[in-house]
Amino acid sequence: MSMKFNMFNIPNDELPTKWYNILPDLPEELPKPKNPEGKNAIENLQKMMVKECLSQEFSTQNWIDIPEEILQLYFQAGRPRPLFRAKRLEQKLKTKCRLYYKSEFYSPTGSHKVNTALAQVYYAKKEGYERLTTETGAGQWGTALAYASALAGLKCTIFWVRAVHNWKHERRTLMHLYGADVNASPSNKTVSGKRLYEKDKNHPGSLAIAISEGLEDALNDEKAVYCLGSVLNHVLLHQTIIGLETKKQFELVDDYPDVVISCLGGGSNFGGFVMPFYHDLLKKKKEIKFIAAQSQASPNLQGEYRYDFADHAEMTPLLKMYTLGHKTEMPPIKGDGLRYHGCSPILSLLRSKGLLDTVAYPKDEKYVFERAKMFVGSEGFLPAPESAYSVASAIDTALEHKNEEKVIAFNVSGHGFMDIAGYKEVLSLP
Amino acid sequence: MSMKFNMFNIPNDELPTKWYNILPDLPEELPKPKNPEGKNAIENLQKMMVKECLSQEFSTQNWIDIPEEILQLYFQAGRPRPLFRAKRLEQKLKTKCRLYYKSEFYSPTGSHKVNTALAQVYYAKKEGYERLTTETGAGQWGTALAYASALAGLKCTIFWVRAVHNWKHERRTLMHLYGADVNASPSNKTVSGKRLYEKDKNHPGSLAIAISEGLEDALNDEKAVYCLGSVLNHVLLHQTIIGLETKKQFELVDDYPDVVISCLGGGSNFGGFVMPFYHDLLKKKKEIKFIAAQSQASPNLQGEYRYDFADHAEMTPLLKMYTLGHKTEMPPIKGDGLRYHGCSPILSLLRSKGLLDTVAYPKDEKYVFERAKMFVGSEGFLPAPESAYSVASAIDTALEHKNEEKVIAFNVSGHGFMDIAGYKEVLSLP
Repeated sequence: MSMKFNMFNIPNDELPTKWYNILPDLPEELPKPKNPEGKNAIENLQKMMVKECLSQEFSTQNWIDIPEEILQLYFQAGRPRPLFRAKRLEQKLKTKCRLYYKSEFYSPTGSHKVNTALAQVYYAKKEGYERLTTETGAGQWGTALAYASALAGLKCTIFWVRAVHNWKHERRTLMHLYGADVNASPSNKTVSGKRLYEKDKNHPGSLAIAISEGLEDALNDEKAVYCLGSVLNHVLLHQTIIGLETKKQFELVDDYPDVVISCLGGGSNFGGFVMPFYHDLLKKKKEIKFIAAQSQASPNLQGEYRYDFADHAEMTPLLKMYTLGHKTEMPPIKGDGLRYHGCSPILSLLRSKGLLDTVAYPKDEKYVFERAKMFVGSEGFLPAPESAYSVASAIDTALEHKNEEKVIAFNVSGHGFMDIAGYKEVLSLP
Repeated sequence: MSMKFNMFNIPNDELPTKWYNILPDLPEELPKPKNPEGKNAIENLQKMMVKECLSQEFSTQNWIDIPEEILQLYFQAGRPRPLFRAKRLEQKLKTKCRLYYKSEFYSPTGSHKVNTALAQVYYAKKEGYERLTTETGAGQWGTALAYASALAGLKCTIFWVRAVHNWKHERRTLMHLYGADVNASPSNKTVSGKRLYEKDKNHPGSLAIAISEGLEDALNDEKAVYCLGSVLNHVLLHQTIIGLETKKQFELVDDYPDVVISCLGGGSNFGGFVMPFYHDLLKKKKEIKFIAAQSQASPNLQGEYRYDFADHAEMTPLLKMYTLGHKTEMPPIKGDGLRYHGCSPILSLLRSKGLLDTVAYPKDEKYVFERAKMFVGSEGFLPAPESAYSVASAIDTALEHKNEEKVIAFNVSGHGFMDIAGYKEVLSLP
């Protein structure tokens, strides 16, 4: 394919048919989850989760077949998604860098989250479950699970961090259009939620609290199963479809990134986008720099590398990860999907080995949204608030290396059509 | 490509490189625009419009080259856009029909309108203009022109039907993100607007009024040029990229439609989608039925076929078209892009020859939005309110021919992410 194009895609029949499992390639064995003293959290979690996902969680296979039915669902969700060369943005920045972005915003629900939602719901249905429960922060994951459940004809119950639930009316309606049951969290539907809700009916909530509620709800109904949209290995595994496609698209262009960037909350879009590139780094085939863009509201990669709970109510096993502490209160931001206290164990291990850089942007989000506006004006696509962090970091990197021919790849993990009120507020638009 | 896929796309280098001009193929010569008695409307309009567009308006060439720069912009806007087979919807409807839909919703601004916006702005810039003026109804066209102007680095002034401007906050902010100057119409910025605005500051406006304002604004500034997003021949011409792609995609699937459906307001998405198929009908290669889905709020195809103004203030030439009368007041609906008194001359001529069927749905939009919800639940994509009419008509047709293997192609001209409040209201969602 000629370089005259600014947009590159692979044909349908070249859609990757296996996910990439990084576990066997890691520089050392991934620290295993642990039970907190006196608790059977691991065994309890196993009861609440989809069995196939659990088996993928610790798989030693390097490549895992994507079932034909899930491939069909990926087509249905518009995969493969194009890779764009940001030529207009390069010109505006007067940089010699070549910028490429992956268009995960071309998603039916607006983000990359469908990639794992479709897989998890498929396996859940196969295992006989009738209802899915989950938490959501920004709302992207909840929408994705509602979507995947609708396509499969299953029920879906969502616990949504109240601080976000209350201002994202449109996204809430969309979940209802998919037929989901949507609850502001902490809710009075679960014991763990009720405890906080009764103290403060306007409790802003957090991802960690919502996780506790989703887990508890699944535990009390044997027809229900709990799904998680980030952090865990199998979630990142499903998301590798992003990076695997991107690598094939770079082959078409006959180019290869020096720097790979995305935003990072729990780590699912970041992991899915970058892990196939880590493969080349770990196999010593390439030198690549990885940058995770975060908010100063929750810069978990600048926390401590230690065992911690994934949730607020301490129902999950302990995971070894970079964490700010699972009880830490984090101020609400528009890029709420980044507001989580810990980073996924896989990416945390890579960070601990010095293989992952990070940048954290100010909480008021002005800087980040201004960068995003620059992207909107030159490339025409409106990034989700979370993805705006990826855009900002890519622009900063392109400016930093203005006179070098660096190749920068970044992921635009979602669109912002349902988050425009956030742009309006932060940028004080009329 | 195997039928196992539900999604079909052509490779980048097979993107059509010529637009299809139906004028030479029409069953008789298209009635020419006329000057109203004692006015030089045609000559005045010519002064306000992009010259290349005017020359395309009456071209006798069957195929018109798409300049390389516009092809680049089409890639930038994510073309070619996939064609989906709606297998899940077919199953839900228990129909033997095969349903295919074109994904114009995969657009940076949310609709097909970018296809002509990018072309018009490209030609305007080439001709030395620095500012574009226009009207918008649903807001899809205004957003598209704001987008195309941003990419070209030109200014953009939008007159937006007040009834819609006032409830579509998000879309308004998006136009601002693209740097456009946005005015509720009737405004006090123009003489024709002021006349109405001063009588009633809450005047809901109409497309015809907004057109008058856009024209007047361009007339008073020699650096400005007026662009129209529908009705005219050159607009429909640019939109044929939709149908031309779709035909190539049908070749890949080795299938061909018996019925071709879309919604119709002024006629741009309808014309662009269907005209390449009319080519086969007019050349006696195929038997095809065409259905235009409309609202009972503005069923212009059920009006009279006669000369009428395209605008409210009688500044345009007279066009021969199916019309409800240019002074007719039409009640606001969520699918506001369908709320226009006349149908484009090309499609009107085809209608007058018995080659175009139409259906008009009730004003309360419940029926249409329920159909759209069915589509959302099975296919996962959220149609724009206007596109919901296309979806409803496709579903009705599939049910009507339940036991026949009819092939139905319909266009989903835009997404509804910025119109979710409308869904919520009409369907009384929580």
